[in-house]
This record gives sequence, structure tokens and C-alpha cells, in this order.
Amino acid sequence: MASSPKHLTGDSVAINEFIDKFDVFLIDCDGVLWSGDSVYEGIPETLRMLRSKGKRTVFVTNNSTKSREEYIKKLTRLNIPSDVEDIFGSAYSSAVYIARILKLPPGKSKVFVMGESGIEQELDAEGVPHIGGTDPAFRRDITDDDFKGLADGSLLDPEVGVVLAGLDYHFNYLKSAYGMYYLKNGARFLATNTDSTLPMHHNFFLGAGSVMAPLINASGQQPLQLGKPSQAMMDAVEGKFQLDRARTCMIGDRLNTDIKFGVDGKLGGTLHVLTGVDSKEAWQKEDAIAVPSFYADKLSDLRLVDNA
Amino acid sequence: MASSPKHLTGDSVAINEFIDKFDVFLIDCDGVLWSGDSVYEGIPETLRMLRSKGKRTVFVTNNSTKSREEYIKKLTRLNIPSDVEDIFGSAYSSAVYIARILKLPPGKSKVFVMGESGIEQELDAEGVPHIGGTDPAFRRDITDDDFKGLADGSLLDPEVGVVLAGLDYHFNYLKSAYGMYYLKNGARFLATNTDSTLPMHHNFFLGAGSVMAPLINASGQQPLQLGKPSQAMMDAVEGKFQLDRARTCMIGDRLNTDIKFGVDGKLGGTLHVLTGVDSKEAWQKEDAIAVPSFYADKLSDLRLVDNA
Repeated sequence: MASSPKHLTGDSVAINEFIDKFDVFLIDCDGVLWSGDSVYEGIPETLRMLRSKGKRTVFVTNNSTKSREEYIKKLTRLNIPSDVEDIFGSAYSSAVYIARILKLPPGKSKVFVMGESGIEQELDAEGVPHIGGTDPAFRRDITDDDFKGLADGSLLDPEVGVVLAGLDYHFNYLKSAYGMYYLKNGARFLATNTDSTLPMHHNFFLGAGSVMAPLINASGQQPLQLGKPSQAMMDAVEGKFQLDRARTCMIGDRLNTDIKFGVDGKLGGTLHVLTGVDSKEAWQKEDAIAVPSFYADKLSDLRLVDNA
Repeated sequence: MASSPKHLTGDSVAINEFIDKFDVFLIDCDGVLWSGDSVYEGIPETLRMLRSKGKRTVFVTNNSTKSREEYIKKLTRLNIPSDVEDIFGSAYSSAVYIARILKLPPGKSKVFVMGESGIEQELDAEGVPHIGGTDPAFRRDITDDDFKGLADGSLLDPEVGVVLAGLDYHFNYLKSAYGMYYLKNGARFLATNTDSTLPMHHNFFLGAGSVMAPLINASGQQPLQLGKPSQAMMDAVEGKFQLDRARTCMIGDRLNTDIKFGVDGKLGGTLHVLTGVDSKEAWQKEDAIAVPSFYADKLSDLRLVDNA
């Protein structure tokens, strides 16, 4: 059994030791830095403090609706100035995986996207051709001609080699049917992430894993998911930032994505903050999916170090 | 272990015995009579032959997109003249269940429909109030006001006591999010059926079970399903037609709906036809979900009886 996580809140000695232990902090966004569009109190100051001590802060998020460029805008607006190189999202992770690891053969190099513009922008940045996505031609009701052309294959693009699904606020029957036929024709099934729900407006909505559920159910296939806790994402993060895993800590609010991501990745530590999805009861359970090495009531509790 | 099903194709003696064994044939539609809008060859003649021998033919379908009235039109167009009393669909079965068995309390009597007009028409026929469904107000993209109004509950109708999901060619994020919040508020979760795929144009598309998968995934709840193989539907069929189960045969193309429906309902027999979803490998497997008592390559093979 894993030992209990150390509680950092209010303990300046423990906080000091915690910060000294690491060079890099991988930080989840939703539920750690903010809920929707409201940043939590003290977050900008906490990140400034960590950076002033020479720590690298990398934002690692499963939300694929925004590209890294769009995340920069949001972070800047919320008073957390950052560089595009500080962001690692599941859309970017997926684009890198497709471009550099999958290496699709000529004639099968296109991606059918079931998701928002964040995915399209990251694929563009990696030079990966794609169809579907935000194209209005796929944001409409299915017609009888669509049914016929999908059933006989005449509507399918023979160059599609991958179906990449992520959070799509515009999912519909037509796109799901296209996805189903591309999978049937042998396309690889990838997902930016499979979170079932999405924290928003201090409540929950359908996450990526839910909007791609029609495709999973009808095809009988499970996607390879490239967001947290997938170690494909950890490998990509390590490759990009040349980090020493032993001197790296993952900070997050979800056990089944963030904390499991850090534990499976054999990082030097994981910090669970209680401002998002999971409470501490989640790792106190006998069958907890992952147990963090540290926890704090909120990320801004780390600021106490300055008074030590 | 169940004994092997008897193969009827080409065996006029076996066909004769088979037909003599039953008074009532419960017959699935998609994949048995037709694929989409094309009726299989010899089907009208086969049904005429059965009826000429005094057999009752009842069409028992899980497809909820059409009402019984609309099925009559389709059957007539395809040269299978029938009466509304010959049809038993999952939309009708669900409306009857809600109106006569659930008996929703006052103040919680509305149904939020995730499906097509077939469901609405059957609910209307039973006097059950409903919202959602084909209302254009729900056939659009979700907006930020929708997110807010769902998260704080202000957009929800407090009288909704049931979410009824069926095949919906217009499923989207907005309707799924409404369904999710009604379930969260305690509404009962019912499904006309949960078939994962739908045979159409001699191929397969997404079935009801796939288009409601986002709701199941995000809510963590499973619906009570009222189509085949649910015995709620068998009880309703028996009650309506006063049939003798021992002299009744279920004919279908799917093991997990049709054949299981007949086996669980302790009918006198089940006939699997190979013109739809399942091939005979499906019941030859060790862990087959149900094994029919008879099988034929196609339903029209029964016509050989005339030559016997």
C-alpha cells in the first residue's frame, strides 16, 4: 500500500523541502489554476514565486478545444504571462504523435478530425493534412444521399489513415457516421483524451470521452488516447523538455488523469490540489486509482514558502 | 448447452413442420424484411403465404423513428399491406410503459425526448406530455447562455420526470447536456432500445444505443430499455395480442435483441435469418448470447413450403 501523501498547507518547512526537491512542475489547468474563466486567487503570484526560484512551469492539459496559441491568450488574460513553449495540450500531443511517431504512409496521410479548432491548428503546425473538424460541410444533418454515399463508400476520402477524436461541441450523426466508416476501412482510432466530464461554470458537462462514445459504441473499437494519463504524452513531454523525471512533479486535481499520469511516469513526485474534481476521499479509498505523494488545499498555499 | 438450430433453407419437410408448429409469428423488420428502403426479394409473397395459412404476423421492431401509422405507410409502399394493429414498435412500447405502468406523479409528468417523431406521435397517442424531440429549439449548437442556464438549473423544466432516448438522427451536445441535467435532477432514464447499430443501405450505421452513449457515459447511468430483448416489451405484446407463447415464434436477424427476446420470453421457437446483422458464427460461439431453434438463409426461403 502506498504511504499517505504529505499535507503541505500551512507547513512552511514541508513546502520548502517540496519545492527544493524539483526543477520542473507539470501543472494541470482546469480545476488547478481556474474554473472556466475565473482564475483562483493567488495563482499568478504562486507561479511567479516558483519561476523566481528557477523552476520550470509547464502547463499540461487534456482540453483539446484550444491550441497552444489560444492558451497563451487565456493565460495572459488571467495574469499568468507564459510562452507557447510552456504549454503542452492533448491536441498538440496528438499532432506530435501523428507527425513524428505514427508516420502515416503516403496515400493514407490524412486525419479525419472529430473536434474543435484547437486540434486543427496543432495538426497544421505539424504539417499534417486533415478533413472534418470545424468544416461546415460536416456540421449539418445527415441526408439520404449521405447514408447512401457512406454505405457504398463513394463519399469517403481514400487518403484518411487516422480518425482523431477530441472534445467536440458540434458532434452529430453525420460526423460520427463518417468516423465509423473510416474506422471500418482500417483507419487508426486516436483520441486526444477520454475524460467523461468537463468542469465548467462550477458544474459538469460532457467531456471528450462522452462525445466520442457513439463512435466507440457503434464501431466496437477503443481509441488509443494521447492525453493524461497516457504515457505516450509523458514520453512526448520528456522528449520536448529534456526533463529529469526524478526532479519533476505533476500537479493536478484528478487522480485518474493527473496523478496517475505522474505515478505511472515514475516522476519524483505528485501534488494533488483540492480545488477541482477529486477530494481527498478519492485517494483514501482502498481501491484508489492513484495516490499522490503530496497534497495541498490549494496551489496558492505554496506561497507560504516565502515566509520560511 | 443448447442444441444446434435446425436449418430450414431448401428442406421443404422441415419448413412444413416449422410453419405448422406456430399460430403467431413475431417478425423483426430491419435486416429481415428490408434494408433501409429496399424490401428483400420474395418477402411480400412469403408474408402472404403465411397469412393464407391463417398465421398471425406481427411486426415487432426496435426502430423508434417511425410511429405505427408511419410503419403502415412503409409496409404498404413495399407491397406488404398491413393494419396498425399488426405493428408493435419500441416507441409504442415505451409510450405504453410510461402512460400505463410508470404513472408519473403530477408535477413530474413530462418526458424529455431524445429521438425522432415516431416517439412523439406515440406519446401523443397515449396522452403523455413531452418536450425536446424534434423541437427546432433543441436542434442547434450549444451557446454560452445554455451552459450557464443548465449549470445553474434555470433552463430546466421542473416537470420533467423521464428522459426517453431512442434513435435520433439529430443528436447533439445541447440535447445530451439537457438529458444529463434532467438525470442529475432525478428523472427516470428510459430507452426505446439500445441496439448499437442500424442496418441501412445494405450496411450499418449508428443505432439508438450509440446515439445515447454520450448521455450514458457522462451521467454514469444506464437506461431501462423497453425494446427487444426487454421482457417488458414481451409482456406488452402478449397482453395486446393474447398470444399463446408456446405457439409463437420470434423471427429476427440479431441474437442480442430478437433471438434473446424470444428465448427469454419462453416462446415455442425462434428463427434466425442471415440477411441482417448476425451471421451463424454468432451462435456457434461458445459464449453466444442466445441460440435460435431454427435458422434460414433468408425469410423468403419459407416459400418452399408451397412446393411440398
